[in-house]
Amino acid sequence: MSEPLRIALAGLGTVGAGVIRLIEANAALIARRAGRPLQVTVVSARDRNKDRGIDLSPYAWEDDMVIMGERADVDVVVELVGGSDGPALALARTTIEAGKGLVTANKAMIAHHGLELAQKAEAAAVPLKFEAAVAGGIPVIKGLREGAAANEFSRVYGILNGTCNYILSTMEDTGRDFAAVLAEAQAKGYAEADPAFDIEGTDAAHKLSILAAIAYGAKIDFGSVDASGIAKILAADIAQADSLGYVIRLIGMAEADGDRLFQRVQPHLVPFDHPLAHVDGATNAVVAEGNFSGRLLFQGAGAGDGPTASAVVADLIDIARGEAGAPFSVPVAELVAMAPAETGHRMGRSYIRFVVADRPGVLAEITAAMRDAGVSIESLIQKGRHEEGGDVLVAMVTHEGPESAVAEAVRLLEGSASLTRAPLVMHILSD
Amino acid sequence: MSEPLRIALAGLGTVGAGVIRLIEANAALIARRAGRPLQVTVVSARDRNKDRGIDLSPYAWEDDMVIMGERADVDVVVELVGGSDGPALALARTTIEAGKGLVTANKAMIAHHGLELAQKAEAAAVPLKFEAAVAGGIPVIKGLREGAAANEFSRVYGILNGTCNYILSTMEDTGRDFAAVLAEAQAKGYAEADPAFDIEGTDAAHKLSILAAIAYGAKIDFGSVDASGIAKILAADIAQADSLGYVIRLIGMAEADGDRLFQRVQPHLVPFDHPLAHVDGATNAVVAEGNFSGRLLFQGAGAGDGPTASAVVADLIDIARGEAGAPFSVPVAELVAMAPAETGHRMGRSYIRFVVADRPGVLAEITAAMRDAGVSIESLIQKGRHEEGGDVLVAMVTHEGPESAVAEAVRLLEGSASLTRAPLVMHILSD
Repeated sequence: MSEPLRIALAGLGTVGAGVIRLIEANAALIARRAGRPLQVTVVSARDRNKDRGIDLSPYAWEDDMVIMGERADVDVVVELVGGSDGPALALARTTIEAGKGLVTANKAMIAHHGLELAQKAEAAAVPLKFEAAVAGGIPVIKGLREGAAANEFSRVYGILNGTCNYILSTMEDTGRDFAAVLAEAQAKGYAEADPAFDIEGTDAAHKLSILAAIAYGAKIDFGSVDASGIAKILAADIAQADSLGYVIRLIGMAEADGDRLFQRVQPHLVPFDHPLAHVDGATNAVVAEGNFSGRLLFQGAGAGDGPTASAVVADLIDIARGEAGAPFSVPVAELVAMAPAETGHRMGRSYIRFVVADRPGVLAEITAAMRDAGVSIESLIQKGRHEEGGDVLVAMVTHEGPESAVAEAVRLLEGSASLTRAPLVMHILSD
Repeated sequence: MSEPLRIALAGLGTVGAGVIRLIEANAALIARRAGRPLQVTVVSARDRNKDRGIDLSPYAWEDDMVIMGERADVDVVVELVGGSDGPALALARTTIEAGKGLVTANKAMIAHHGLELAQKAEAAAVPLKFEAAVAGGIPVIKGLREGAAANEFSRVYGILNGTCNYILSTMEDTGRDFAAVLAEAQAKGYAEADPAFDIEGTDAAHKLSILAAIAYGAKIDFGSVDASGIAKILAADIAQADSLGYVIRLIGMAEADGDRLFQRVQPHLVPFDHPLAHVDGATNAVVAEGNFSGRLLFQGAGAGDGPTASAVVADLIDIARGEAGAPFSVPVAELVAMAPAETGHRMGRSYIRFVVADRPGVLAEITAAMRDAGVSIESLIQKGRHEEGGDVLVAMVTHEGPESAVAEAVRLLEGSASLTRAPLVMHILSD
């Protein structure tokens, strides 16, 4: 057996503790598969004395985590501190500059600083890996970087946020409204006390920007992800979607449009017969459509200490095997700066929902706006909503047409006294 | 850009032609991702003059494919000849002995000779890769070997034969019987003229034995796979399963039972809420249940020239990157010879279906046999079958119990004049 791969572990929250438990529990099989043992030599966290339910006595303790990579007893640093900047980024930089490898689960840091870190890692000829940053335990970065590496991708998309998927599928199962389900999810610990990061689509956008960079050989561009969340979805939307043959899922999607890059996180109507329609609860799933592979689906737990630790340790095993590769699949110098795609000319079908006052002429006003904007209506449902006074829900599905037409129709209705809420537009996931 | 990886391609059927098309179509992106171009230098097949719809003039032709690996202009041989022995095996041996890498899509050869070839490859320090041998374009060998490498697997199972899945899901959709759907599948080219290999479970067993070896670090043992097929499934079974909340799928499953290895290919009843219940048509899907990752699902096209070529070229890219690794995840010397598991004590729920003569006392005879064997019945449906004279279908689902009890109950009824067909037992996929 060769020399162990010596690991410094920064951050001892649930994932950090999970990594230690995994490396201890599966030590023998990991050593066999990796060709050498994985050995945690030193750990660090904010509070040394907190009880984490694991015995830290076998490991050295480092007070200043930022310098862990500079220690002589460390080959690779595992960064599980979190946050796009601050100590995590400082640690990442010092580690790579010290000529050590870095494994991280930090999607925010990679989304914001991945290019810089990849450049530094390439210059220092050290591995930089972040499988756990996207879709938890699902080896989807490996799937794109390696498993499907022979393909040009027409689209890469998926369910990238477990909290949102839990909320949407619970709304679906129970018929309850967003606020009630969110509150319950918070009580159960499935959603953060401050849920904005998840429910506004930011977390999914971080992950999408990483997948897009790998799939398209593009410089990571988190800032151009067009992200919206799930807070405006009503129980009635889910019921309407169901009656039309769809479920609602928050989908992150990346697509090359010529030499431009389309990146969007938005709730979509997903047809019942699409594999993503059956992804329930906190599960994540990513679809990659390759020009030779066809549609590949990777599905599993998107978060949690065990799955995330599984992905972190998979990266460590790759490093122990000497199979780390370029973080974004191609060398940094060959990553292309892709301008954000224009979206107005994108063709598709949409679901548009209005909540309107129950009085004569409202439907005529809405359908006139559709006509004037050139939006062709495939089906329309109008339904009284007892729970909100006299309000009426008008939901429609459009025929295929340009997104700009739908936006124009909504703009024409802006400020209309008939509308008691802002309209909600969701795209229908095409096959 | 580094030197190209020079490839000899043996076998120019649909997959071979697909590999050439892929390498030509995606040449630029492959070179970028692999760090060097993939260059087919020489090809070989039985018939040089057959029109394959591709231009072979850029490539040298080798009449004797077995010696391709000995050529100076070859780094890696891609074997797409097929067959567990014969020219494919001869080519594999001479290639590795000549110190060249081997990529193959040949599940039968790996199932029968994978251990020998891995030993030879390890001794010669050359790569041996076979992603395309299991589940077509789905990178599931990589998923197990690398993506989920941190985990001990409780089970690895999946839908490994697209022909069977196409037949079963078409029977489901149309209500037609096996023979009619098979005939149609043959007419459409979805099933071979001699379909035995697929419908009797042999093809799935080949693939399962490969997955099991990787997941459990075991010496590959195709001979111990307990395989049965789908030919005995009636349209009425599918209807009964549906009414009970299940679909029928041919599942290959591997599981470690202490130091023994359980490997079985058998039609299973899959609950509607299991992800495999939504895998329709020729699609394949593999589930790996890891002790930290939880349930991972890999899904995609299980066959076809494009998907298979995608997997072959992914292997070539790994080799070009210098990231080939041990074929069965651990070094050959560390692969364990695992004895086949006993199955009688396995606990589970079963579906048992009898076709019986419509006369008094038959149900009493069957239920008495169940009682005498200690099988506890959860639900039972008896249904007249007009299409077969006076025959009656009796289908039941058992409570959880040992498989040996179900086998004993069926044995007690053996030779009974009441039974007009052999009973069919299918296990219910547990969660």
